[in-house]
Amino acid sequence: MKKAVVLLSGGLDSTTCLAYAKSQGYECYALSFDYGQKHNSELEAAKRIAHAMNAARHEVLPLQLNQLTRSALTDQSIDIPDYVDDGEIPVTYVPARNTILIAVALGWAEVLEADAIFIGVSSVDYSGYPDCRPEYIEAYRKLAELATKVGVEGKPISIETPLIHLNKAETIQLGHKLGVDYGLTVSCYRANDEGEACGECDSCYLRKKGFSDAGVEDPTHYIQ
Amino acid sequence: MKKAVVLLSGGLDSTTCLAYAKSQGYECYALSFDYGQKHNSELEAAKRIAHAMNAARHEVLPLQLNQLTRSALTDQSIDIPDYVDDGEIPVTYVPARNTILIAVALGWAEVLEADAIFIGVSSVDYSGYPDCRPEYIEAYRKLAELATKVGVEGKPISIETPLIHLNKAETIQLGHKLGVDYGLTVSCYRANDEGEACGECDSCYLRKKGFSDAGVEDPTHYIQ
Repeated sequence: MKKAVVLLSGGLDSTTCLAYAKSQGYECYALSFDYGQKHNSELEAAKRIAHAMNAARHEVLPLQLNQLTRSALTDQSIDIPDYVDDGEIPVTYVPARNTILIAVALGWAEVLEADAIFIGVSSVDYSGYPDCRPEYIEAYRKLAELATKVGVEGKPISIETPLIHLNKAETIQLGHKLGVDYGLTVSCYRANDEGEACGECDSCYLRKKGFSDAGVEDPTHYIQ
Repeated sequence: MKKAVVLLSGGLDSTTCLAYAKSQGYECYALSFDYGQKHNSELEAAKRIAHAMNAARHEVLPLQLNQLTRSALTDQSIDIPDYVDDGEIPVTYVPARNTILIAVALGWAEVLEADAIFIGVSSVDYSGYPDCRPEYIEAYRKLAELATKVGVEGKPISIETPLIHLNKAETIQLGHKLGVDYGLTVSCYRANDEGEACGECDSCYLRKKGFSDAGVEDPTHYIQ
């Protein structure tokens, strides 16, 4: 059976990605990070999802990026703003986050002798983060070939991004078709301990709009 | 003043690299990882070196790769072998290690608004690790351009590898000229708590030979 490491935040995109990897016949190894995010209910969601979707294993790796980086997602002194569409990279940006997450996934994939890494990035509804673009992923594929023992031996670990050209609505439609229970997922940057969403941050805005555009009922628990 | 993040293991190469970055006029931010390595005296050495060489800051980031990967460097059940030159990638290889370390350095560099990352890899005396080769570093430069906010804005963080074409003896000659106190550094994979070296592992073999070939007195404390 093919094996894949699936980066699983506990949000909508990564959960869809896990469902997709399963549908393609992969035995899935879910990988989450405790990087000091304020919205820790996302991690609790990741655990529930990995279990519900029969991941072969789920690891949560502590990674105290708040020791080094500042972002509204990890720094208590920066408030998470409401959604603003001004074309700027938002304060929720965590420097080099995907670069770090994929690097760790690559190490684990090499140990597991996995064939692929799945990451649920989208270049469409990507909030302006540079590390969600196709050209970024393409550069990482090249790096992965050169970085690993298996790559050098001619069997590189592939980096799969099934959502890269999908907008939020299309992602939700795909997951809906694959039977994803989006009630398990948490997207909100300001979710409370029960996983209830604020309804007003970047991430909530895009999620709400996604369900509405997809014509799928939104199972999210909003605080207000 | 230009700023650089310098990856500092506490060994001979990374210490030379720090001295070189300083000599080039960089204010240096030293970054070490506690990744569950058995030879923890290396980390103690890194702290002494960062202090002695006036790093602007030194961070030691916990990163429990032994949760995911197996390597003779982190797994208590795998013995570190004596030096063998058989052209194989040795069991001391930590999957994707440099990929992970550079990724974290990239995140910190972006936060610090640093101009460069320095890493002391060498493609000459590299023990057969794939992530020490020039083509690997070149692929990472491309990725760094695409991965970061500053890269997107046209001012990518450069990845500097001043030792890449130097053998161990040439590295030691460079550091000697720059006034590096190699007595502070620990290379041995099996060093004891006092930082004394076994004299027989891969890393000791290359270090001993390096000092001998360089015609520089070896200040290493060997156990036997």
